[in-house]
Amino acid sequence: MTEGKELRKLGEFGLIDRIARQLSAGKGVVLGIGDDAAAFTPSPGLLSLVTTDMLIEGVHFDLSFCDPLSLGKKAVSVNLSDIAAMGGKPRYFLLSLAIPPTMTLDFLDNCIKGMLQRAEQFGVQLIGGDTCSSPGPLVLTLTVLGEQSPDSLVRRSGARPGDQVCVTGTIGDSALGLRLLQQGKRLDNALLRHLDPVPRVREGQALAEAAIPSAMIDLSDGLLADLGHILDLSSVGAQIFSEALPLSDIFREHFPTVTEEALSLALAGGEDYELLFTVPPEEIPKVFPLLDKLGTRASIVGIITAERKLAVIGPDGREIFLHRKGFNHFTNENKT
Amino acid sequence: MTEGKELRKLGEFGLIDRIARQLSAGKGVVLGIGDDAAAFTPSPGLLSLVTTDMLIEGVHFDLSFCDPLSLGKKAVSVNLSDIAAMGGKPRYFLLSLAIPPTMTLDFLDNCIKGMLQRAEQFGVQLIGGDTCSSPGPLVLTLTVLGEQSPDSLVRRSGARPGDQVCVTGTIGDSALGLRLLQQGKRLDNALLRHLDPVPRVREGQALAEAAIPSAMIDLSDGLLADLGHILDLSSVGAQIFSEALPLSDIFREHFPTVTEEALSLALAGGEDYELLFTVPPEEIPKVFPLLDKLGTRASIVGIITAERKLAVIGPDGREIFLHRKGFNHFTNENKT
Repeated sequence: MTEGKELRKLGEFGLIDRIARQLSAGKGVVLGIGDDAAAFTPSPGLLSLVTTDMLIEGVHFDLSFCDPLSLGKKAVSVNLSDIAAMGGKPRYFLLSLAIPPTMTLDFLDNCIKGMLQRAEQFGVQLIGGDTCSSPGPLVLTLTVLGEQSPDSLVRRSGARPGDQVCVTGTIGDSALGLRLLQQGKRLDNALLRHLDPVPRVREGQALAEAAIPSAMIDLSDGLLADLGHILDLSSVGAQIFSEALPLSDIFREHFPTVTEEALSLALAGGEDYELLFTVPPEEIPKVFPLLDKLGTRASIVGIITAERKLAVIGPDGREIFLHRKGFNHFTNENKT
Repeated sequence: MTEGKELRKLGEFGLIDRIARQLSAGKGVVLGIGDDAAAFTPSPGLLSLVTTDMLIEGVHFDLSFCDPLSLGKKAVSVNLSDIAAMGGKPRYFLLSLAIPPTMTLDFLDNCIKGMLQRAEQFGVQLIGGDTCSSPGPLVLTLTVLGEQSPDSLVRRSGARPGDQVCVTGTIGDSALGLRLLQQGKRLDNALLRHLDPVPRVREGQALAEAAIPSAMIDLSDGLLADLGHILDLSSVGAQIFSEALPLSDIFREHFPTVTEEALSLALAGGEDYELLFTVPPEEIPKVFPLLDKLGTRASIVGIITAERKLAVIGPDGREIFLHRKGFNHFTNENKT
């Protein structure tokens, strides 16, 4: 069947019905897809969290190497990652789709299947959205709603001099996978981290419930750029130790010595979707057993300083200057 | 200055700061723009409402005749209109912007000014969002959060045979304004209804609090299409009386006799952003004084029937068949 033809036959409301039929009634949901707005009962005593992220074809993903199932999963993951960075529990999501005329129904079905799979994995329900035709790229806008105890909300603004800078998992794999792919090569394990990152929701909740982090953020633009947000809002600086960065075996196989290119990928490549958090020294001993229970590695990669400067320190104790600092829409330039 | 240059200089985070600086701390907001997610305290005992709508350049608006201030206002209004249709009180909104490289900072400033003006008018706070570069059209995705007493939630599914079909204000003006503009003519009062519709938030809340409507929806795709959603979900039909349609003086000046073209604009033109609601006969006497207090006209335009058919009845008592039924993305065809 010609591209887009099935979708034209189905129409906007047919597509909405098709999605709604795949959903089961969720806990707390009073009214899901199909009315003017969705309605749910917030849990008594908890704060509501809300975050939204756009994924745009040609900016955030490339349909020539991105399969629809992974794209759907990733769209949900990057939003859940923001809730994870608050230490919150994600509950519901809304999906807005702007669909170009060439899009096939098969692609959309698989993309939505990926979203619902990832959402179910984290106990999250699709409760609403919007579907439109797009004269340009495919655009997915997701909004995720979550909940959080007021006592355990982790902000970006709480880092203090002397706090240790920690990170979950490994960094740089996603950027390495993408770069190789753009060069026509495939490194499957690294590429998987780019195409299908899994958000650190359970880790974020566990850390927040134990009141361990003084500040937390998820790594989407690269460690330096994202740590920069914590530093700005906390009015502090930091030193990051290049030797302490958690690099995967695959990453180290590709870079037997940590070149400037390797450091750039690890510190400014972006899309790691790991959690970066700062921890007062007396709380540090709790971090490793807590994350170990979840099967997740934690690393101390630096320290918060009173001097408002972000420096990367090499094995010789000297500062390393990196050309690339992280992703910034509009400029495509380094941030200062 | 060259188009887009100022925005590239400002960058993604500069733009977010620029927006955040215009906001004041709102009631209930624990954490606004600038963290991974926004956090707010839901009001005890109330349901949370959430709705999202995309506005896409070339689909929902045309930058050749749409000024940025009105575009911003409209983007908020169409989302508030969905909360109004539940009878809810809007509280917060999130804004996702996909910005093409040619966009000027002046345009964006005015667009955001329009959003904040309309939001303030209804006591709504901007608490988060996302900004990206777009390789295609300008895309605005707004998500509005609201609240509602569980007892006064008005669904689309509650219409019963014998209920009267009512509508606020007048219909068809927006479609008339747009059609004339596309023909190179201007009819300012009608065009204003297209460019800057004002959502019926107070009317929706007043009707819901008085427990008057059995079902309610806002008119975005046209009366017939939107009433169709109520009929589908309520498993009923309706008769609409062409003579009873509330047409403005301007509309009647343009159409001294109600031609098929006039009926099509009024019933299937779309973007009226009035409320369509069904009312049990015994509640009808309450409708007029209630809306009159808000300075809003109400009209009875039809009746709900047990027979699952939607018919437009002319002055001679015979059914009128209209070619155009309402807007549907992807198909651009009539709905059945």
